[in-house]
Amino acid sequence: MAMDLPVGFRFAGVACGIKSRVGANDVAVIVSDEECTAAGVYTTNQVVAAPVVLSRSRTPTERCRGLVINSGNANACTGTRGMADAQAMAQLAAKEYARNFPSQDKGADEQWIVMSTGIIGRFLPMEKIQSGIEAAMSSLGTDEKAFLAANDGIMTTDAFRKIGVRNLSLPSGKSIRLVGMAKGAGMIGPRMATMLGCLVTDARLSAKTAQQILQRTADKSFNCISVEGHMSTNDSLVLLAAKPTIENPALDQADEATFAAALTDLAIEIAKMIPDDGEGATHLIEIAIQGAKNEGDADQIARTVAMSNLVKTAITGGDPNWGRIVSAVGYAGVPIEANVLSLHLNDIHLFDRGEPLPFDAKTVSQSIRASKLTRILLKVGSGHGTATHWTSDLNAEYVRFNSEYTT
Amino acid sequence: MAMDLPVGFRFAGVACGIKSRVGANDVAVIVSDEECTAAGVYTTNQVVAAPVVLSRSRTPTERCRGLVINSGNANACTGTRGMADAQAMAQLAAKEYARNFPSQDKGADEQWIVMSTGIIGRFLPMEKIQSGIEAAMSSLGTDEKAFLAANDGIMTTDAFRKIGVRNLSLPSGKSIRLVGMAKGAGMIGPRMATMLGCLVTDARLSAKTAQQILQRTADKSFNCISVEGHMSTNDSLVLLAAKPTIENPALDQADEATFAAALTDLAIEIAKMIPDDGEGATHLIEIAIQGAKNEGDADQIARTVAMSNLVKTAITGGDPNWGRIVSAVGYAGVPIEANVLSLHLNDIHLFDRGEPLPFDAKTVSQSIRASKLTRILLKVGSGHGTATHWTSDLNAEYVRFNSEYTT
Repeated sequence: MAMDLPVGFRFAGVACGIKSRVGANDVAVIVSDEECTAAGVYTTNQVVAAPVVLSRSRTPTERCRGLVINSGNANACTGTRGMADAQAMAQLAAKEYARNFPSQDKGADEQWIVMSTGIIGRFLPMEKIQSGIEAAMSSLGTDEKAFLAANDGIMTTDAFRKIGVRNLSLPSGKSIRLVGMAKGAGMIGPRMATMLGCLVTDARLSAKTAQQILQRTADKSFNCISVEGHMSTNDSLVLLAAKPTIENPALDQADEATFAAALTDLAIEIAKMIPDDGEGATHLIEIAIQGAKNEGDADQIARTVAMSNLVKTAITGGDPNWGRIVSAVGYAGVPIEANVLSLHLNDIHLFDRGEPLPFDAKTVSQSIRASKLTRILLKVGSGHGTATHWTSDLNAEYVRFNSEYTT
Repeated sequence: MAMDLPVGFRFAGVACGIKSRVGANDVAVIVSDEECTAAGVYTTNQVVAAPVVLSRSRTPTERCRGLVINSGNANACTGTRGMADAQAMAQLAAKEYARNFPSQDKGADEQWIVMSTGIIGRFLPMEKIQSGIEAAMSSLGTDEKAFLAANDGIMTTDAFRKIGVRNLSLPSGKSIRLVGMAKGAGMIGPRMATMLGCLVTDARLSAKTAQQILQRTADKSFNCISVEGHMSTNDSLVLLAAKPTIENPALDQADEATFAAALTDLAIEIAKMIPDDGEGATHLIEIAIQGAKNEGDADQIARTVAMSNLVKTAITGGDPNWGRIVSAVGYAGVPIEANVLSLHLNDIHLFDRGEPLPFDAKTVSQSIRASKLTRILLKVGSGHGTATHWTSDLNAEYVRFNSEYTT
């Protein structure tokens, strides 16, 4: 893959020793050559990591300088010292950026967005972080190698990279570039599922537009995935974009719509890689809901089915025990029409308007076993609300990894 | 244990071949010599089994004749035929009761409460059910053996019996008897977690009082337990009590309070046996919440912590990864005070008012490993709301059992 990176952004990732595995990147920076637009969507957990508190207060903005990220330690549940450490990360980023790019306006600490992922409840090793930020800021690049190094710096237990790229010709004729990276919810090692995602584009967007587009994108992608459904203290999804100027104004309405569709498409592509890489997962499960009262209800039903251990283990075992799926629909806490409720599993019709259908168990089982992807389609009523979620199956491997004593 | 059973009730349990294991009881009946009071608390799942629809419409009442129960098949998601089958179970119970007790008033089908548990989505084998009800009604007894036979008829994959008994002297001097039985959420075999519970007493209660007391009891006991948190289509908890007459009026207020406390105590004792017998479980986890805004909020937080696979697997592994517990509090969907949030694990103070405390990981780990019971105590704010929940840990065994293809 020859990646065509967004113009005006630089990437770096280095190893500074936060992670125990020698040489594993654990600090990443993404900087903008000029002040840029930044939008952010964060965890809604009330127990929230210091970097999230900081970054949430700094987005949306049109005066962002860049992102500074560490993996291997979440800086969550670390109290007042944790907040000081997150602020120190931004200060170090500002200082090191100024040292490496003396011709640039120095900028302020508040222009940096901070993200952390890893184990909860431990203080950041600030000496290592400092050496990491110093090394990263002096190795910034604009090529694929630099982008991949940055991506590797946000990963924790991911088995594979979760990245994607789009080059778009917008209706006005403009060409723009869009790249994305995310870290998954593998659970070995630091073993806390925290999702970080960065989307970077040279499309020009106002802060307000960027925030709106990012929220809609998140609701269709990163908010529709789960591994075990434990909401993290650190989830952060940030969009960096070029900022509008008098010479280079923001995208017009038609361009904006095309851009937003491409961003959502890319985000879904990357988001699906996370449950696909779930700990020990042998299946990626797609749960499509139709006929709910509205999109919010459909989303809630999809989420409830996705979080059922009984649904997940049935898919793991290739077991056509469809009662587990249908029964999960009924406790999602939103109204359904029981006499409309229907289920297709891998296109096989199993339950029709409240009545069980005869089926060949062996055929259903084989269809589950034959593919990494299992598709669940539920019609829950006669409304227009739809949603699609993706999750991992639940495997004895997951339990083993997450119950191994490694602290 | 010599059980002193409530006066005026008869019990039976028989094997009729619904379960594949030869000789395993799968039909139970509990009958009252006179019309009795019955109260019921049922699943709130919108996808609900036929027997629940039927029984829900028949309680509370003071004209109940008894319960007819089968295990091995939930009669859920079985549409119109399922509803007819549930009604047929009540008809068979009424007919066979009348045949065996010709001196009694014949009674109506509507006076029978029906309960089913087992796999979802299969039609009941009505010939077997009929022979089972016939056999049960002709083998009714008032002794411990009959009670245990009935209990065994409601079990599915339980590794041990979940029963309890109380003999009470009430403030007025009256003596009353109270027995309870429940089936657990073991998941091998039929593999659908459905909870059935029956509480039987010769205390005299009006239908209204019985219903109020039972709901409060359920909220403190069977509604506070989980194994994997998948809400069943069949959960039913029924209280049978003697009905008030002119000669024998209902309990007075002081007696009623004593009775209600004993009922709740017995129900908690039995309910805790269910996660204790969770599939593959090596720990019973007790989650106590203090300082919530109100009891409802405390309940919601306890439930959320109890449902986290990451909390469960940490306990399985004796891993003092307390960030998993604290972070689950924050996404319960009810307000907490993050600067008050504190955690004790087995009386060891790990997190104090938003700040991590130094601790010896080995000591915490050993305290988890040393006992079947793990105690989590969370202070989540400065309110007066408290709640206690109980759940199983999550073990590779659970996953294996529930992903084995046996359909």
